[in-house]
Amino acid sequence: MYGAGDVRIETVPDPRIAESTDAIVRVTRACICGSDLWPYKEMKAGDPPRRMGHEFIGIVEAVGASVQTLKKGDLVVAPFAISDGTCDFCLEGLHTSCVHGQWWGGRANDGGQGEAVRVPLADGTLFKLPGKPDDALLASFLTLSDVMGTGHHAALSARVRAGKTAVVIGDGAVGLCGVIASRRLGAERIIMMGRHADRIALAREFGATDIVSERGEEGVERVRALTGGFGAHAVLECVGSEPSMRTALQIIRPGGAVGRVGVPHYDGIPETRQTFYDNIIVAGGPAPARAYIEELLPDVLDGRIQPGRVFDRTIDLSEVPDGYRAMNEREAIKVMIAFAV
Amino acid sequence: MYGAGDVRIETVPDPRIAESTDAIVRVTRACICGSDLWPYKEMKAGDPPRRMGHEFIGIVEAVGASVQTLKKGDLVVAPFAISDGTCDFCLEGLHTSCVHGQWWGGRANDGGQGEAVRVPLADGTLFKLPGKPDDALLASFLTLSDVMGTGHHAALSARVRAGKTAVVIGDGAVGLCGVIASRRLGAERIIMMGRHADRIALAREFGATDIVSERGEEGVERVRALTGGFGAHAVLECVGSEPSMRTALQIIRPGGAVGRVGVPHYDGIPETRQTFYDNIIVAGGPAPARAYIEELLPDVLDGRIQPGRVFDRTIDLSEVPDGYRAMNEREAIKVMIAFAV
Repeated sequence: MYGAGDVRIETVPDPRIAESTDAIVRVTRACICGSDLWPYKEMKAGDPPRRMGHEFIGIVEAVGASVQTLKKGDLVVAPFAISDGTCDFCLEGLHTSCVHGQWWGGRANDGGQGEAVRVPLADGTLFKLPGKPDDALLASFLTLSDVMGTGHHAALSARVRAGKTAVVIGDGAVGLCGVIASRRLGAERIIMMGRHADRIALAREFGATDIVSERGEEGVERVRALTGGFGAHAVLECVGSEPSMRTALQIIRPGGAVGRVGVPHYDGIPETRQTFYDNIIVAGGPAPARAYIEELLPDVLDGRIQPGRVFDRTIDLSEVPDGYRAMNEREAIKVMIAFAV
Repeated sequence: MYGAGDVRIETVPDPRIAESTDAIVRVTRACICGSDLWPYKEMKAGDPPRRMGHEFIGIVEAVGASVQTLKKGDLVVAPFAISDGTCDFCLEGLHTSCVHGQWWGGRANDGGQGEAVRVPLADGTLFKLPGKPDDALLASFLTLSDVMGTGHHAALSARVRAGKTAVVIGDGAVGLCGVIASRRLGAERIIMMGRHADRIALAREFGATDIVSERGEEGVERVRALTGGFGAHAVLECVGSEPSMRTALQIIRPGGAVGRVGVPHYDGIPETRQTFYDNIIVAGGPAPARAYIEELLPDVLDGRIQPGRVFDRTIDLSEVPDGYRAMNEREAIKVMIAFAV
């Protein structure tokens, strides 16, 4: 990415093993993230160009001398955070705070939106997928790199529980995965706040029981009316804007929790006093996707959840710039890049 | 209270049963709360005068026709929130959000800093204490009305757990009870941030293992140095000022929780982005003290905890104005009012 709206395909040197803990992965599926759209909207033309992409699956091509759990030919998923798997934070399941943590792309590392990637700390970072899955599963596997893990993290942070009411704010791919996660955790009622017909239709298929398309004060009133006047036990904040966070804090029930996974574009968490008097919990952040794969994978394998359905467009590498455009213009929910291997 | 610095003793009509769910309680011990000092500092002289006091124990003198669990002669503790004990929130243990909740004092209700009180919703609000305890226990019983419950709530909200490190910000009576609660919940290391010699000495007796007297950036550095650079698993924010909340959020470890029980005097919870990237949990609010009495009482009865030691001055009713002054000038940690019964 060279600047706002300026994504280019370039030929770069093939990745090579640099550290003994590296692996080289040939990418088979990657995708574009909602968070990639922030620089797509805001990056200055003069800034140093950045390699893009932090969600991918692929086949291990080579491993460094000290890699122990992976070998050539393994199908792996790469979560959006690079982590060593051995530090205190990784052992606690918070891989996004790994003391040796790194991020994909930028200038230091390869990006997932490319044909091949050098993977640092391969044993800790990569998760080996089982067997030879059919093609239909690949899309859902890909979501375990970020978007499904992020929806799950929002639901866990919001303490979604059996029999409770959850509200999902944001009908993007993360919000849709938040619906899947809330359903999976047993929420009795799942209210989706969103307004795009195609996304709402998918939300319903994933388990949303109510749709609120109003925003601001009107949206708050609607949710309150649906929840006996008290608000919802759990709110999944999947946008990150100030109005969205404010709405989340206005529709949460006393004693409830807001799980925020939208990168915050606000200063100061609002509604400070009301959330205090109502004993509201605010939790969440970047999802430790690596920690959740083991838990979510069985449900993907037997089809109980189908997060891969958030991809409503598949492109090849040459079409990536148009993929950004399509997601930015909300023409597509989420775009998958299929590589010819 | 008539205005800042203006507390008066006045003779008012004796309380009488007004609703069948009422009880009349003759107060034996009451106290002055850190939160009473806010109006003592800030109340305008023109504002309508308010009855004060929301922490007391006493003897039931009379009960309304529908009161079922209490009778004349019972020794009871009155938590700082009036609650029905039967609504969804009370059943969940969040009595401070009771749908029929009321507060002591003001203009609608009697205050606890008086000889006798009409107690609305007596069955739900009052907790009957066992037997005829010796006098030394009365002070600790009194703390179950608010300050010990609040320290416990801070520790629970901050997710203090066995073997973990907790930081308590604020060396007032709530912070000191936060130390007791953290120790009780098994914290291995308890760092008290405070600077008053008498309070720090008591904190050490209650179980604080380290003292940090620096504030601001220096205090943050000290705590980080004590916690391997990462910060503490749990922070109990017992002040409510903006600098204090900011410090709390700067010394919390990734994945940790801040339990805030200081009434917030800040707009917007600060450090919004760092707390997001570090997956910090912010929780807390007014403590559902009523919910905690059952859990804390056995430890009080057998002396395992002695929260009554936070009272370092005992006065009679006529001295209440001077009690406010003494607490406001930090001459006393917490003042108890003993009534001749």
